[in-house]
Amino acid sequence: MNTAAIYHRPDSEFAYLYTKETMHLRLRTARGDLKGVSLLFGDPYLIHQVDGFETPVAMTRYLTTNLYDYWVCEVNAKFKRLSYGFLLQGYDGTEVFYGDHGVFPFAQEFLEMPNNYFRMPYFHEVDRFKAPEWVKGTVWYQIFPERFANGDPTNDPEGTLPWGSKAPDRQDFFGGDLQGVLDHLDHFVELGINGLYFCPIFEAYSNHKYDTIDYLKVDPAFGDEALLKQLIDECHKRGIKVMLDAVFNHMGDVSPQWQDVVKNGADSQYADWFHVNQFPATYTPGNDFEDAKDLTYDVFAFTPHMPKLNTANPEVQDYLLKIAKYWIEEFDIDAWRLDVANEVDHHFWKKFRQVCDETKDDFYILGEIWHSSQSWLQGDEFHAVMNYAYTDAIMEFFVKGQIPMDKMVSEINSQLMLYRNQTNQIQFNVLDSHDTPRLLTLAKGDKDLMKQVVAFTYLQPGVPCIYYGDEYSMTGEMDPDCRKCMVWEPEEQDQDMFAFFKEMVQLRKDWQPLLSEGDLLWDEVSETDGIIRLTRKTSTGTLTGIFNAGTVTYDLTVAPDQILVENLLSLEGKAGQLSPKGFVLLG
Amino acid sequence: MNTAAIYHRPDSEFAYLYTKETMHLRLRTARGDLKGVSLLFGDPYLIHQVDGFETPVAMTRYLTTNLYDYWVCEVNAKFKRLSYGFLLQGYDGTEVFYGDHGVFPFAQEFLEMPNNYFRMPYFHEVDRFKAPEWVKGTVWYQIFPERFANGDPTNDPEGTLPWGSKAPDRQDFFGGDLQGVLDHLDHFVELGINGLYFCPIFEAYSNHKYDTIDYLKVDPAFGDEALLKQLIDECHKRGIKVMLDAVFNHMGDVSPQWQDVVKNGADSQYADWFHVNQFPATYTPGNDFEDAKDLTYDVFAFTPHMPKLNTANPEVQDYLLKIAKYWIEEFDIDAWRLDVANEVDHHFWKKFRQVCDETKDDFYILGEIWHSSQSWLQGDEFHAVMNYAYTDAIMEFFVKGQIPMDKMVSEINSQLMLYRNQTNQIQFNVLDSHDTPRLLTLAKGDKDLMKQVVAFTYLQPGVPCIYYGDEYSMTGEMDPDCRKCMVWEPEEQDQDMFAFFKEMVQLRKDWQPLLSEGDLLWDEVSETDGIIRLTRKTSTGTLTGIFNAGTVTYDLTVAPDQILVENLLSLEGKAGQLSPKGFVLLG
Repeated sequence: MNTAAIYHRPDSEFAYLYTKETMHLRLRTARGDLKGVSLLFGDPYLIHQVDGFETPVAMTRYLTTNLYDYWVCEVNAKFKRLSYGFLLQGYDGTEVFYGDHGVFPFAQEFLEMPNNYFRMPYFHEVDRFKAPEWVKGTVWYQIFPERFANGDPTNDPEGTLPWGSKAPDRQDFFGGDLQGVLDHLDHFVELGINGLYFCPIFEAYSNHKYDTIDYLKVDPAFGDEALLKQLIDECHKRGIKVMLDAVFNHMGDVSPQWQDVVKNGADSQYADWFHVNQFPATYTPGNDFEDAKDLTYDVFAFTPHMPKLNTANPEVQDYLLKIAKYWIEEFDIDAWRLDVANEVDHHFWKKFRQVCDETKDDFYILGEIWHSSQSWLQGDEFHAVMNYAYTDAIMEFFVKGQIPMDKMVSEINSQLMLYRNQTNQIQFNVLDSHDTPRLLTLAKGDKDLMKQVVAFTYLQPGVPCIYYGDEYSMTGEMDPDCRKCMVWEPEEQDQDMFAFFKEMVQLRKDWQPLLSEGDLLWDEVSETDGIIRLTRKTSTGTLTGIFNAGTVTYDLTVAPDQILVENLLSLEGKAGQLSPKGFVLLG
Repeated sequence: MNTAAIYHRPDSEFAYLYTKETMHLRLRTARGDLKGVSLLFGDPYLIHQVDGFETPVAMTRYLTTNLYDYWVCEVNAKFKRLSYGFLLQGYDGTEVFYGDHGVFPFAQEFLEMPNNYFRMPYFHEVDRFKAPEWVKGTVWYQIFPERFANGDPTNDPEGTLPWGSKAPDRQDFFGGDLQGVLDHLDHFVELGINGLYFCPIFEAYSNHKYDTIDYLKVDPAFGDEALLKQLIDECHKRGIKVMLDAVFNHMGDVSPQWQDVVKNGADSQYADWFHVNQFPATYTPGNDFEDAKDLTYDVFAFTPHMPKLNTANPEVQDYLLKIAKYWIEEFDIDAWRLDVANEVDHHFWKKFRQVCDETKDDFYILGEIWHSSQSWLQGDEFHAVMNYAYTDAIMEFFVKGQIPMDKMVSEINSQLMLYRNQTNQIQFNVLDSHDTPRLLTLAKGDKDLMKQVVAFTYLQPGVPCIYYGDEYSMTGEMDPDCRKCMVWEPEEQDQDMFAFFKEMVQLRKDWQPLLSEGDLLWDEVSETDGIIRLTRKTSTGTLTGIFNAGTVTYDLTVAPDQILVENLLSLEGKAGQLSPKGFVLLG
């Protein structure tokens, strides 16, 4: 047995309250190494007694990665306390006990030592990771406001270009605004989405508004507060939630606070609002607007126009927390998306979470983090992160051909085991965004491939998000190209793609809670055939997807009335042929 | 290479800020599997560039357990941000890259993917685990107030027994009090200790006072607030810090709050202060005062007299946090020891930490936790735990003979790798306490063995604590026997043991910061000879301990002027003979 591969971490994603009374436990072991694992457990104050053990629970081998098997089980505790350890049975005949002091031979003398057990000292509901229920059934739609629709030409900034007249450059303006969004509510209703995620809308210098000037003001080029209120109310009437983008890592350099620092240096009342390493706060402007290496202050990346906020300063905390509260309280927003969330300190985010929780029930907090995010997802900071790490695996296999099928599955399974199940159910699964090339562009214009990827992603736990225009087959390279003006001319709109997205959105809503909560079963992962067959399963139902990621047609038998959505499937009676890039979802 | 054994967890004890600008990194690999590990790193916004890497840092193989090698290094980052991954070189010739998406062949294509790296997104001082500096140089002395000294017979409870007249039973009183402690300040000064840790002193029913009636009142049998204030002031004058015991997991059942619940059930204003599963709050009294299985309310263990507090209730939080603040603000205490700390929720402890930090600089918070405690030691709850898990390994090898020498070393190293270095430096290393048999009793009265164990423990990182009376060779089985009356008759006091402890306490103070911060090097761990040779090392000095845990005399060469402390060492010139149970510490 590869005992060095065994891993468990108490009070983490390996051992957590799923519901108030039910604990989920996970154990990691080397792939294919064990024939069985049992959970040995009892009350911490009884387990030293011979009869102190409850009946052991056989754990299930659930997800497998290239290196590991993950074993899972559920357990309750009469007195809301648990001591537990693992009995591992290897294919090589070895039996070991694994607990808080490592691996021991499976022998009575080690079982009798109460300190050898891991502990869940008490089932504290207040510490449980709690997910807002509504998020599970939400399909998001991301709007880059400057490019969605120009509903009010009177607020266009100087030099605004005609809508869609060219591919966007970094500093272009095309006049998109909130009135444009309000004018198109029917579009969202028709598509079926029930969550709008807005890129920043507060007053800022740039077209992307990530360089905030005034967090308490809607950018004049987008409209005003009254219009925003109207827009949110109209969304709510239609069952659509609204998420705004909070850019709290940094401010814009045009903001009065930063300008005061530039002018007054260390004497500025805002001197400690930022991270100025040496006064005066300067840099040498170069050819690249967003790149300076000799900055005397910390910024986002290397852009001198985004000085980093000192969120450890109580004044800054007060300022930002009031802003967080203001838009929830006065405008009834349902969620904050947090820009560059990983670069802001945990202390601040914990306070932020408290303010949000106190202000509105079931509020959703989504952090922008592209890497492993365990330490932000313990239940007292974010509910979810932008799940690029997860969807990257999908993209790298299906679209970019960078990794083989089994590596994708391995990576998906790894990602799922990084977080609690209730987190996985509301992770934000983006295939593209304002920060990436568009899906169809990465798919080299192949719409079947795009549909396959979308269908595969919609079958995952976690909630999908449509980047504006994807539903009409818009294309775009890395930003600024992915931020083109939305196509509103009917002849430019791909109605077939729209119908496909509409179908998929409906599927996500129809198949709740299965698509959120169901187990993920990899029925078939065949590199040779190029076939992935994947089932989501709860005690009451199943949904299976079959994806042909290979190069030859795949024969399958399928009952026509089971088919929920398909593409490139031809059927005669029950005999089906699934072409490459095709898929079928079966209920 | 055993790739399945590789482990790293970003933003944890594997990757943390040690100082404001220096990060510590750790990597776990299978024991003896690798010949080298290098850290590949750079700024997250540069690492995708060919020249974006800094010069790789060779990691050091530091501590080894039965299963693992732990590799460590220090690193700084010019822009306070880090992307990093590991290049692992196996003895089998394999080279792999390990990063945020697992293990890859060491090839350019994988190194070029910026998302393959782990991240420390920004060096946030506010999130750094900060240890109160004074704790490192502290040697604690634990007082069980009812048994230390009776300084004021007028406050003795009814039925108080003559001092030391018998071995204590569960319900006995002997009259110990705060005046008794005040009377013996010279004892502490003579011994050299500089921290007093008091078991609970607030009004309570029992002799141990873990069943609080009134948290704002000194128990009348111990004295009053004025006396406590005087005692603390006198301690501070002598450079002695004071730690009180906060019993916040539960209250005593005699408290007015609980009595109100018993009387008024669900209508009590305190009904939600506790965890009553069903009203009325009852149980069937049995033969055992501390054991009831049919309780309708949650308690500590199974004792009906300690109903568990609902620390998720804001009223209870306010109540307890005011208490926490009161004793710091009004009495200037230096530390709280938190009873049954693991069974109280994290949310509460985070608030508790904030209150303590706001009230007094460099305050120390010590949680009673007997098992793995990572989730309480992230920097925003406790500073340390009662380190039974660590000292257990020492006891199990040296005293109980339950584990072999290499398992002890393995376990010590495992424990050190569970926590950040700054945590390890202030962990509370108890060899015995009011909750365990006394060390000399476990050592079956063998004072040489006791000295050996104490010397070994004082050489560890983490701060030691003397349980009252150990310095005079007091004995005692599991409580209540370990809570005997302190021996004050000179003829009962073991002056040789006192002199030994005095020497060891002085050593701890003389050899700071080396004994706190120095690396721990296992120069020799020889089961065959029974010899452990262990060095603590900083850039400016070393201290070596040699311990004969075997059965035959061990020959060694030693310069007499190097000897700091020894026992059972005989020396002729430089030729030494170390008897079994002997030790020598060399500076």
